[in-house]
Amino acid sequence: MEKKTRVNRHGDRGNYDRETINRILDEGLVCHVAFNDMGQPFNVPMLYVRDGSSIILHASIKSRIYGTLSSGTDLCATVTIMDGIVLAKSAFNSSMNYRSVMIFGNAKPILDTREKIDATRLITEKAVKGRWDDCRQPDSAELKATGFLRIPIVQFSSKVREGPPVEGSLDTDLNYWSGVIPVVQTREKPVTAEPDSGKIQVPEYLKKEPGKA
Amino acid sequence: MEKKTRVNRHGDRGNYDRETINRILDEGLVCHVAFNDMGQPFNVPMLYVRDGSSIILHASIKSRIYGTLSSGTDLCATVTIMDGIVLAKSAFNSSMNYRSVMIFGNAKPILDTREKIDATRLITEKAVKGRWDDCRQPDSAELKATGFLRIPIVQFSSKVREGPPVEGSLDTDLNYWSGVIPVVQTREKPVTAEPDSGKIQVPEYLKKEPGKA
Repeated sequence: MEKKTRVNRHGDRGNYDRETINRILDEGLVCHVAFNDMGQPFNVPMLYVRDGSSIILHASIKSRIYGTLSSGTDLCATVTIMDGIVLAKSAFNSSMNYRSVMIFGNAKPILDTREKIDATRLITEKAVKGRWDDCRQPDSAELKATGFLRIPIVQFSSKVREGPPVEGSLDTDLNYWSGVIPVVQTREKPVTAEPDSGKIQVPEYLKKEPGKA
Repeated sequence: MEKKTRVNRHGDRGNYDRETINRILDEGLVCHVAFNDMGQPFNVPMLYVRDGSSIILHASIKSRIYGTLSSGTDLCATVTIMDGIVLAKSAFNSSMNYRSVMIFGNAKPILDTREKIDATRLITEKAVKGRWDDCRQPDSAELKATGFLRIPIVQFSSKVREGPPVEGSLDTDLNYWSGVIPVVQTREKPVTAEPDSGKIQVPEYLKKEPGKA
């Protein structure tokens, strides 16, 4: 298993605590799930939410990925957040600022109805805080069709790069600009669906946006 | 292998052409590479660039991932771009707009010096158009330390969801707001590194920003 590694502008390394990892997991919108199907690696973007010390993946119960993952096959779920393009004076020392978490383990399907409702609420509220109480909540047929898979956050690894570029010792006086271009995932103004347009106002919990996704 | 699948607001499905896939690959900043190491799935975010009908991954020549991937192990490289949060009137029909490409295959290390310089230029220009001619280009020691891996885009799969929510037939008249919150990855104003501050002006090719990353 890889070491939990931190790379920052001083080039030092350190272990990340749960809190840092939880923040990354709570900020990301999508995780990439790697697993093998008939010996072939697959890597599928999936919706997820952190629930305490586990993450919950969302999939259709009829999907192939739900079948494969719920069998308990080994997987690696990775969440990556891009924070910036790092331009050193040399192409070689140029880099990216990012934060990522890899979780190694196995998924277990959530079968209990109460737990599935909770998972739907968590996924909904992760996407938009305040939405759960302002939408039609799932009926029993929908709950049956929805698959949730729980992965405990036990074996994991995290990598972070932050801060300005690190220059080679002979490069510091070169006349090229150096610095960071911050990269941010933002939410723009909500676009009302055609049938609601002019009829249903944009709710308050959506008006806090635009902001960081 | 999964079918190339398109899901849009009409729920129809269709195959994607090269052009669509190339656009996704050119827009993404990072890909997630899934592979097995001693039987354990790994899933690592990596810098990449499309070069015609292949993608080139970037890694340190000393890294474990470079060693593993250059041995030709099976991999799946996925690029995902989030486009929006789709709020249907029901939690069940709520979704995400996104575009993703999965590439299945094997990587081959780039060993030729000329080809490595080209790869460095492509990676640099993908991050910031115009940067290659305004930075110190790699010397031979740096080129030796930099690893590039080429993956041909031969076996691939693409999935796209776009457009407004699709409502259940009994939901259309419910009084909940429905629509899409666009999600965009943007570049913010460049932050000059401390030593250059007040000495080196932000170059023109960086002033077109902020804009879509």
